[in-house]
Amino acid sequence: MITTDICIIGAGPVGLFTVFEAGLLKMRCHLIDALPQVGGQLSEIYPQKPIYDIPGYPEVKAQELVDNLVKQIEPFDPTYTLGERVDHLTKQDDGSFVITTSDKTKVHAKVIVIAGGLGCFEPRKPAIENLENFEGKGITYMVKDPEQFRDKKVVLAGGGDSALDWTIFLADVAEKVTLVHRNETFRGAPDSAAKVFDLANNGKIDLILSSNLTSIAGNGHLQSVTMKNKAKEELIVDADYLIPLFGLSPKLGPIADWGLNIDKNAIEVDTTDYSTNVDRIYAVGDINTYENKLKLILCGFHEAALMCHSAFKYVYPDQKLSFKYTTVNGVNAF
Amino acid sequence: MITTDICIIGAGPVGLFTVFEAGLLKMRCHLIDALPQVGGQLSEIYPQKPIYDIPGYPEVKAQELVDNLVKQIEPFDPTYTLGERVDHLTKQDDGSFVITTSDKTKVHAKVIVIAGGLGCFEPRKPAIENLENFEGKGITYMVKDPEQFRDKKVVLAGGGDSALDWTIFLADVAEKVTLVHRNETFRGAPDSAAKVFDLANNGKIDLILSSNLTSIAGNGHLQSVTMKNKAKEELIVDADYLIPLFGLSPKLGPIADWGLNIDKNAIEVDTTDYSTNVDRIYAVGDINTYENKLKLILCGFHEAALMCHSAFKYVYPDQKLSFKYTTVNGVNAF
Repeated sequence: MITTDICIIGAGPVGLFTVFEAGLLKMRCHLIDALPQVGGQLSEIYPQKPIYDIPGYPEVKAQELVDNLVKQIEPFDPTYTLGERVDHLTKQDDGSFVITTSDKTKVHAKVIVIAGGLGCFEPRKPAIENLENFEGKGITYMVKDPEQFRDKKVVLAGGGDSALDWTIFLADVAEKVTLVHRNETFRGAPDSAAKVFDLANNGKIDLILSSNLTSIAGNGHLQSVTMKNKAKEELIVDADYLIPLFGLSPKLGPIADWGLNIDKNAIEVDTTDYSTNVDRIYAVGDINTYENKLKLILCGFHEAALMCHSAFKYVYPDQKLSFKYTTVNGVNAF
Repeated sequence: MITTDICIIGAGPVGLFTVFEAGLLKMRCHLIDALPQVGGQLSEIYPQKPIYDIPGYPEVKAQELVDNLVKQIEPFDPTYTLGERVDHLTKQDDGSFVITTSDKTKVHAKVIVIAGGLGCFEPRKPAIENLENFEGKGITYMVKDPEQFRDKKVVLAGGGDSALDWTIFLADVAEKVTLVHRNETFRGAPDSAAKVFDLANNGKIDLILSSNLTSIAGNGHLQSVTMKNKAKEELIVDADYLIPLFGLSPKLGPIADWGLNIDKNAIEVDTTDYSTNVDRIYAVGDINTYENKLKLILCGFHEAALMCHSAFKYVYPDQKLSFKYTTVNGVNAF
């Protein structure tokens, strides 16, 4: 069992900065994130994208901001459980909590802060009957090890960068690659789209445009994928694997069952301290909602500061909070 | 008359960042500050001091943060009136305002944002009778042009860095320098204190410790300063100038007379949009107050963002606000 003062669910920029504000008040933090690395969306989805609205940074790459935040909280020695999803929450008799993750890691904490951004990200799935029956048996939503597809017949679906990039890559690996896309043009990089058209023109891949997946078939494992074009003509393609790459969609996940007041996939909070309706549970950053809420990283930073000052009473019930500015003695004085 | 959408009173870090958030919504800003440069306290009082609690900056010098904020708002072309104190406020029939400064500069604005930090800074004064009679006639609270004191008899008072630094500097300029300090030791840098003791030991200055200023005398212009030590012994020193350097003390200034709800020198705001009780006047940063307020720069950044979204309705009464994230197209798209 990991024990900590504050368990922060979500290690995105706001979750990370919460460690800093907690640290100034001598509260220790443990962070849990479903992603295998810290940084949330910034590191997972757009690490090299410049951000312009972090105060004091005319321009900063997403990953650079994350790296700086990690450095900023180092003096407070946060601990991490990464690549595991928060699952159960059990309230203890003394008001504290035990959190259990998808991998059965247990964390005991006096206070919980949900800094979950837009929630867990789950792959968008095609609307096909019996899809679940073939998940893990020919259907996969991400390419972890391309060697899995060597000398196999692979159907990819989608029109973004992932679909284009993996089509190009697997053209040299798989026995046969078919790319299905519902439109005539691609959303992904023009350069990658041009390469895919070249591969199709040279007979290296099959490119099926203006078509949608309609059904799948197999006997225990996937054997074929059926698609239909706009003229309602059906095409059946032999396939060992189907890889739908339709992007990620945010979900609140198991947190939705913790008795919190939820409004449109976001957690309602009291703006005096960003507490939820459940005692000792706070929510900061994009996952919370209140009147005039703006989903900006800079707003999450403010919410984290006020939240930590409020949580102090649960971590140190017998002490009076005395706040010192960092400019006086620096971070090491804390 | 200068015309603008939003007139920001105070060009400290929060006032500067307000320009950015306003700019994203196509609202133009004019900033007024009593200080001769932007940056507020950061540039005026501790430009070289490192700050540790700006999110994403493990450490940043105060002036560097200000410089970065100035660069960040450049795309939105803010205009400035510096070195002038805001004085009168006149409400126009259409709800807008005309602000008049101490130098009679007039600014017409649809919205006013008070980002005044701790207010105007005024020098702390010694408790001496008839002090005002000699202000500008031998008594000055800051050294603007050291040449003014060449070959004059100067008494400085205080124990901080300003008192030490100016004593050292004026020792080579004035005919005679006397430094009066109420304690035996100095608050300023040990290095500077050592230099001052050296100057005294070598007879270059007179150092009067454990003594307080008690009275002044002169005929139209200052002629002498009287001080008393702890044994109540009086010492009268001939002086053309007296420079008390007791630090700066914050004052709300004329803003206190604008009909705003004030609580302990701070302006009460509604945290849904950081509006004051007066229509179209907002307050952000250290100058406002609300339940659980923290005087942190990062909180002011959040307040500025919500405040600008609220002010939009006054600047563009016929438009619906549509907010775009900067990550989509960068700042130049705005």
